[in-house]
Amino acid sequence: MSDLLQRVTDIARAAKKASRALALASTETRDRALRAAAQALRTDAAFILEANGKDLAVAKAKGLTEAMTDRLRLDHARLEDIAVACEAVAKLPDPVGEITEDWTRPNGLRIIRRRVPIGLVAIIFESRPNVTVDAAALCLKSGNGCVLRGGSEAIHTNLALAKSFATGLRAAGLPSAAVTLLPFTDREAVPALGSLRGIVDIIVPRGGPGLIEAVVNSAKVPVIKHDAGICHVYVHAQADLAMAQAIVLNAKCQRPSACNALETLLVDQAVAAQFLPVMASALAEKKTEVRACEKSRALMPSAKVATEQDFRTEHLGLILNVKIVSGLEEAVTHIEGYGSHHSDAIITADEAAARSFLAQIDSACVYWNASTRFTDGGEFGFGAEVGISTDRLHARGPMGIRELTTWKFEIVGQGQVRG
Amino acid sequence: MSDLLQRVTDIARAAKKASRALALASTETRDRALRAAAQALRTDAAFILEANGKDLAVAKAKGLTEAMTDRLRLDHARLEDIAVACEAVAKLPDPVGEITEDWTRPNGLRIIRRRVPIGLVAIIFESRPNVTVDAAALCLKSGNGCVLRGGSEAIHTNLALAKSFATGLRAAGLPSAAVTLLPFTDREAVPALGSLRGIVDIIVPRGGPGLIEAVVNSAKVPVIKHDAGICHVYVHAQADLAMAQAIVLNAKCQRPSACNALETLLVDQAVAAQFLPVMASALAEKKTEVRACEKSRALMPSAKVATEQDFRTEHLGLILNVKIVSGLEEAVTHIEGYGSHHSDAIITADEAAARSFLAQIDSACVYWNASTRFTDGGEFGFGAEVGISTDRLHARGPMGIRELTTWKFEIVGQGQVRG
Repeated sequence: MSDLLQRVTDIARAAKKASRALALASTETRDRALRAAAQALRTDAAFILEANGKDLAVAKAKGLTEAMTDRLRLDHARLEDIAVACEAVAKLPDPVGEITEDWTRPNGLRIIRRRVPIGLVAIIFESRPNVTVDAAALCLKSGNGCVLRGGSEAIHTNLALAKSFATGLRAAGLPSAAVTLLPFTDREAVPALGSLRGIVDIIVPRGGPGLIEAVVNSAKVPVIKHDAGICHVYVHAQADLAMAQAIVLNAKCQRPSACNALETLLVDQAVAAQFLPVMASALAEKKTEVRACEKSRALMPSAKVATEQDFRTEHLGLILNVKIVSGLEEAVTHIEGYGSHHSDAIITADEAAARSFLAQIDSACVYWNASTRFTDGGEFGFGAEVGISTDRLHARGPMGIRELTTWKFEIVGQGQVRG
Repeated sequence: MSDLLQRVTDIARAAKKASRALALASTETRDRALRAAAQALRTDAAFILEANGKDLAVAKAKGLTEAMTDRLRLDHARLEDIAVACEAVAKLPDPVGEITEDWTRPNGLRIIRRRVPIGLVAIIFESRPNVTVDAAALCLKSGNGCVLRGGSEAIHTNLALAKSFATGLRAAGLPSAAVTLLPFTDREAVPALGSLRGIVDIIVPRGGPGLIEAVVNSAKVPVIKHDAGICHVYVHAQADLAMAQAIVLNAKCQRPSACNALETLLVDQAVAAQFLPVMASALAEKKTEVRACEKSRALMPSAKVATEQDFRTEHLGLILNVKIVSGLEEAVTHIEGYGSHHSDAIITADEAAARSFLAQIDSACVYWNASTRFTDGGEFGFGAEVGISTDRLHARGPMGIRELTTWKFEIVGQGQVRG
C-alpha cells in the first residue's frame, strides 16, 4: 500500500468509525452542532480570512484569472453567508428516522421502512470554499460522516473552515473526526478514496469532466455523478411565442455556466419564420452567439453555422445552438440522440403534445412551459442541495439531504418462523 | 476494441435501443408479452427439454455433483413452474408511471415525481435456468431492457428459454432484442458488460463471491450486489427461551444455503446456562455442528472451538457459531464488527432493549422476535424479487420490481422563469 493510500485509508477509517455517533445522535444534537459550527465560523473569522489570504497570494503568483480568484475570495460578508447557510440547514426537517412505509403481513409480521444515514460520504469538489461547509453541513444534518477533498487552490481556506466546523461538532459532544477534510490535495487521493470498499459508502464528485472521469473510471465504491447538462427547449407549433422567448432568454442567459442552462433551441417549422427573427434580436441584445442549422440561418442571417459537435457540447457560456425541426417526433429524436438526459422543455398550449413530450423524453427533469433553470434543489423546495445528479440510481436530478439517506427494514414479530 | 467487447457492445446497444419500446409500452402490452412468453415456454417444451438434455450430458461428462446437476435439470413440472411464475409477474401491479410525489411550489410550478424504468439492466447469474426467465420477466414488467449472462453449464437451456421469451415479446408487438441472453459465456463478457457506460445502466451480479468481486472490481457502471449474509440472532436476558429456540432452529436449519440463514448465535450470559444445553440438543437433532466460544463450550461440551475466522464466515451449511455476550452492548459491538449488515435479530420481551438493538444495528433488515429467514421479496409481499441487495444505495435488502425503476420529475408551468 502506498503511503498516500495508507494516509487516506487511516483518515477514512477514523471518519467511518466516528460516523456512527452522528447516525445515532438525536436531531437536536446534530442541529446544535450545526449552529455551533456557524458560530465558530464567525468567532474564527480572522483566522479564516488570513488563511484565505494565503490562497489568494498563491493564486496571484500563479496568475489565476480574476474570475477564478473571485470564486476563491472570502470576506466578512461571504463568511457570514456561509454561517447563515449552515444555520439554515439546521432548520430543515430531519430526514433521519423518518418512516416511509409501514405494513403488516398476513402472518402478523410488521415491517417498517425507516430512513437511516448512508454512512461515510466522500465528496470531491473544486474551487469555491463555501462548498466545504455546505457539504459538511448536509452530511451532518443527514447523520453521515464525510471525507471532503477540495481543490489545491483553496487548501488553506478549506482547512481553516474545516477547523471551525470541527469546533461545532465538539461543542455538541460529537467526534470531530466524523467530518474530515483531506489535508493534502494530491491527485492520487481521488482513486484512493474510491478504492475504499467497506469504508467509503458513496463518492460524490462535483466538478468538471476531468474530475468526473477520474472518479468514475477508478472508483470501486458507488458513485453519484454531477455531470454536464446539454439541455433543450422545444418551441412547439402551438407555443405562446412571447412565453417561448422569455423562457429561452432565461434558460440560456440568466446563468449560462449552470448545468441546467439551455444549449439547444429546437423550433417547430410551423412557427420558425415568425419566431426566429424576433428571438435572434433578443439574443443579440443579450450578446448571445447563435450557431444554427442551415434552415434557421435563412431566418437568422447573423447566425454562425452549427456543427454536429455543437449539438453535443455544453457551451457553459453565451452560445446557443438553434435547429428547426419538422415536429414533435423530430424534436424527441434529436433530444434523445444529442441530449444528456438532464433537463428538457416543451413550450406549447397543446396538452396532448406536452404529455407526449413529457412521456417520451427520458430526462431527469422534463418541463412544460417553464425554464430548465428550475432544476435545482432550492427551487424544488428541498431546502438545500448536494447537487444535480446525472445518474439514474438512488438520486436523479436535484439531490437533497433525503438522497443522503438509505433505509433499513425493521421487522417486529411474535416469534414467527418461516414455513 | 477486442472482438468479444465489440460483440457484447453490439448486443447491448441493440438491447438499449429496443428498451425504449418497453419503457413506452402500456401496462397491458407488457403484461400480454409476459403471458405470451409463458405460453411459448409451454409450446416449446420439447425443444427446451432437448436443449436441457445437452447441458445435462455435458454436466455428466464433466463429472458435476448430483446436487449441481439437479439444479440444472428441467422437466415438464419445473418448466410449468417457470411459466406460472412468468404469469404471476404479469399479475403484479405495474410500478411504471406511478406518481410517488406531487407538489406545487409558491411560484405555481407543479412538480410530479414519476416512476420510470431504469433503462438497460445487465444481470449476471450462475446455474439455475429458472433465473433466466425470472430476470427477463421482472425486467420486462418494469419496462427495462435486459442483457442476461448465465453460466456456461446452462447455456443450451438458457438459449432455448430466451428464444421462447422472445416469442412472447414479438407476440405483443415488442422488439425481442430488448431482452437478450448473451450467446457466449466467456469470462471476459462480465467486464465487457460492466464497461459500457451510457449503454448499460445497471449491472446486477447474483452469485458467489468470485462473481461479485469480478463485477465490482471491473464495472464502470453502477452495480447492485447480491452478496453474502453473515446473520446473527441475539438471545437477550429477557427472551422467551422457547421462542428463541424455535427461531434459532428455523434461521439456521430451514435452508442453510440461503444468504438470510443464521451463522452466529449470541446468547446473553444471564440466560446461557438455562438456554444453551437445551439448544445444543435441539441442534444436534438437526445434525448441526456447533462452533462455540470458550464460555459456551462449558455449557455445550460437544461443541468445537470457534475460531476468529468462523465468526466472519458465511458457512452456507449446517454449522452454527455460538458466543456468550455480557449484554446488549457487547452483542451490538460483535454484530457491527463481524456481521455483513444483512439480517440480524434480537429475541426479547423487553421493548426498550429491542428498540435499542433495532436502532443501533446498521443492517438492511433488523428483527425483533422473528427469524432472519424472512428477508425475502416474497415474504415481504413484493410479489417477486430480483434478489437481496447487500448494497446501501437505490436498493437495500429485498429488491422487488419497484427497485428496477428510477424516476423523472415532470414540471408543469405557465411560463415561469427563474429570477
